[in-house]
Amino acid sequence: MTWLDIPADDPFGVHNLPYGAFDPGDGSSRLGVRIGDRVLDLAGLERAGLIEARGALQAATLNPFLALGRPHWSAVRDRLTELLTDDAYRRRVERLLLPLADVASRLPFEVGDYVDFYSSEEHATNLGRLFRPGSEPLLPNWKHLPIGYHGRSGTVVVSGTDIVRPGGQRKPADAPVPVSGPSQRLDIEAEVGFVVGAASSLGTPLTTKDFYEYVFGVVLVNDWSARDLQAWEYQPLGPFLGKSFATSVSAWVVPLDALAAARTPAPEQSPPVLPYLADERIGYDIRIEVVWNGTVVSRPPFSGLYWTPAQQLAHMTANGASVRPGDLYASGTVSGARRDEVGSFIELSWGGAEPVTLADGRIRTFLEDGDTVTLTATAPGPDGSVIGLGEVVGRILPTAS
Amino acid sequence: MTWLDIPADDPFGVHNLPYGAFDPGDGSSRLGVRIGDRVLDLAGLERAGLIEARGALQAATLNPFLALGRPHWSAVRDRLTELLTDDAYRRRVERLLLPLADVASRLPFEVGDYVDFYSSEEHATNLGRLFRPGSEPLLPNWKHLPIGYHGRSGTVVVSGTDIVRPGGQRKPADAPVPVSGPSQRLDIEAEVGFVVGAASSLGTPLTTKDFYEYVFGVVLVNDWSARDLQAWEYQPLGPFLGKSFATSVSAWVVPLDALAAARTPAPEQSPPVLPYLADERIGYDIRIEVVWNGTVVSRPPFSGLYWTPAQQLAHMTANGASVRPGDLYASGTVSGARRDEVGSFIELSWGGAEPVTLADGRIRTFLEDGDTVTLTATAPGPDGSVIGLGEVVGRILPTAS
Repeated sequence: MTWLDIPADDPFGVHNLPYGAFDPGDGSSRLGVRIGDRVLDLAGLERAGLIEARGALQAATLNPFLALGRPHWSAVRDRLTELLTDDAYRRRVERLLLPLADVASRLPFEVGDYVDFYSSEEHATNLGRLFRPGSEPLLPNWKHLPIGYHGRSGTVVVSGTDIVRPGGQRKPADAPVPVSGPSQRLDIEAEVGFVVGAASSLGTPLTTKDFYEYVFGVVLVNDWSARDLQAWEYQPLGPFLGKSFATSVSAWVVPLDALAAARTPAPEQSPPVLPYLADERIGYDIRIEVVWNGTVVSRPPFSGLYWTPAQQLAHMTANGASVRPGDLYASGTVSGARRDEVGSFIELSWGGAEPVTLADGRIRTFLEDGDTVTLTATAPGPDGSVIGLGEVVGRILPTAS
Repeated sequence: MTWLDIPADDPFGVHNLPYGAFDPGDGSSRLGVRIGDRVLDLAGLERAGLIEARGALQAATLNPFLALGRPHWSAVRDRLTELLTDDAYRRRVERLLLPLADVASRLPFEVGDYVDFYSSEEHATNLGRLFRPGSEPLLPNWKHLPIGYHGRSGTVVVSGTDIVRPGGQRKPADAPVPVSGPSQRLDIEAEVGFVVGAASSLGTPLTTKDFYEYVFGVVLVNDWSARDLQAWEYQPLGPFLGKSFATSVSAWVVPLDALAAARTPAPEQSPPVLPYLADERIGYDIRIEVVWNGTVVSRPPFSGLYWTPAQQLAHMTANGASVRPGDLYASGTVSGARRDEVGSFIELSWGGAEPVTLADGRIRTFLEDGDTVTLTATAPGPDGSVIGLGEVVGRILPTAS
């Protein structure tokens, strides 16, 4: 039990303790841990000698801390729990707590490589139907490997960053040649992202069993997508400008340790996978909400994903590719079987053919300028508690002219 | 005329002055400039007060120097030329020259985002024939935009790094299901890479006219490719593990300023491109040689590429995506019209159907363990001089078991 005055059902209680970076108001970036509606200043904590992480907590991003590896992550988490629950530390720790409302979020880690998977069978099936009507929606490789591709890491932004509508090239179905201009089919993708902590060696694959040692934690991801740009450009080398303008992540990285109680059996796989992809079928019961201008339009269930994050890690390194602290790999759009469980608006409006009406009466297919999308998520914590994954929010600004 | 004893036709004469990073023998990484068969210690030069770059030359990589921007790049280059040509500086500069043979190359810059284009019409046509036999080899979008995708920046390695044969999943044509194991069709891609110096703003596209202000210089790139992995995985999201195991770059970044005399008209484009892709049609007369176990097997001509690096930069940012110091974008495989001008072995051996015989009598289709590939290139310099782009060399090691 913490000495802080926090309700038992607070999604940022002492069982969560997610890490982030914040600007205290002087333009700098400092590391902190969120507890309730406050931020604990980790740099101050380390300088005061209350916690020890080889100076990594003095950095502007989490990367040096991530590089320390699992034993240090566990030690720091254990110590934070002690500091926040033992009344003996209250006086010294309390003065390092800042109101969340007084600070601005910064990108919590410098992104190394960003990989985006495509691991929801429902989403891949829906997109196959929409992008390749008349042919088999799932391609022959889909159930044999977790399809993925590299995204642009330099345009990963923290929740709250405005999103400028991308311009680019698209080809209207009835036009003989492409046109350029602002995207007409701007969309979201609700995803869960995994933040790599420890580095691996080039030439040596990781296995599904390495997941817990190498992955530090989880963020929410909105992989903004311009469907019209994507549809015209994506053959044969995959999505490029349709995705690379922005990817938003939540401000607080929830440690894997906070999600131990959220582990849940992942779907059985058929046909059987190759040995390097065999795993313990552990998913996470993360429940996402997609909020469009204030209306909850969908509740995608992460637990149903066909490919697990452990399989994604093993596949991503099966060719000997190395990982490094700050690498981010996202699940792919999380969609459930029902229309009110899909993780993108192209699915929600079925390619624009079935508009949705928001609570304020406004009718939508894709995003309009001024729209705001908020993804939030929670997962079960220990002893009936709730673990909050925070939110990832973005507002659409018009294309720069 | 330099006071160094360098032949007039040395490809690393005073008109070149490429930048790199080297380990002087103590495990550290220092910045240097190559001149002839020596390295000029830039950190020492700056500490001695002989050159000024805001301390950026003390770094382990070129990134801080790249971030300074075009005016500083020009000032440092001008000063280097002065130091190496005015005999008055000889005594003070000479003691900062190290034999190239005494140092080890390091990756010259930390790679931000790595983008690989697909801009040779001959290569795209050849690959279309090989990967999609019976259909139109060039897809409808190819002549309207420079097709590209993001590669893995964390596995970009410097020339001389051994390449471990990638394992992974592939589907033999006669097998009902995929198998996993070492790639059977390991290939190269000979490319020219462009190193971004200055950062741009998220949400604001660059234009083709911004090329010279934002791009610092050029490296040679070998984008190693596992064709069997790639063929099975690449639909619908593009190449992933078939490419991500390693990309080799040359150790010395040749400044754009050294290539002024190599500028040459790029091919005319038909149909006309959209306005944001209109450019001055400036290509570079860079002549590549592909050497396989000592035999020159191909001489790909970079000057024939359909899409110019200025167009690639404008397209890559057309959706508002930002660039940052250390971003690398590669041309795509450089192939000319003739079989002895192609930049990959899948083209050279026509998908393995037409083996090649090397000078030592060995017969090859794809790479075998122990094989070494060296790419070299030169371009015309001022006053009849030659600009060397150095080499990118890699030897194939067996898959780790």
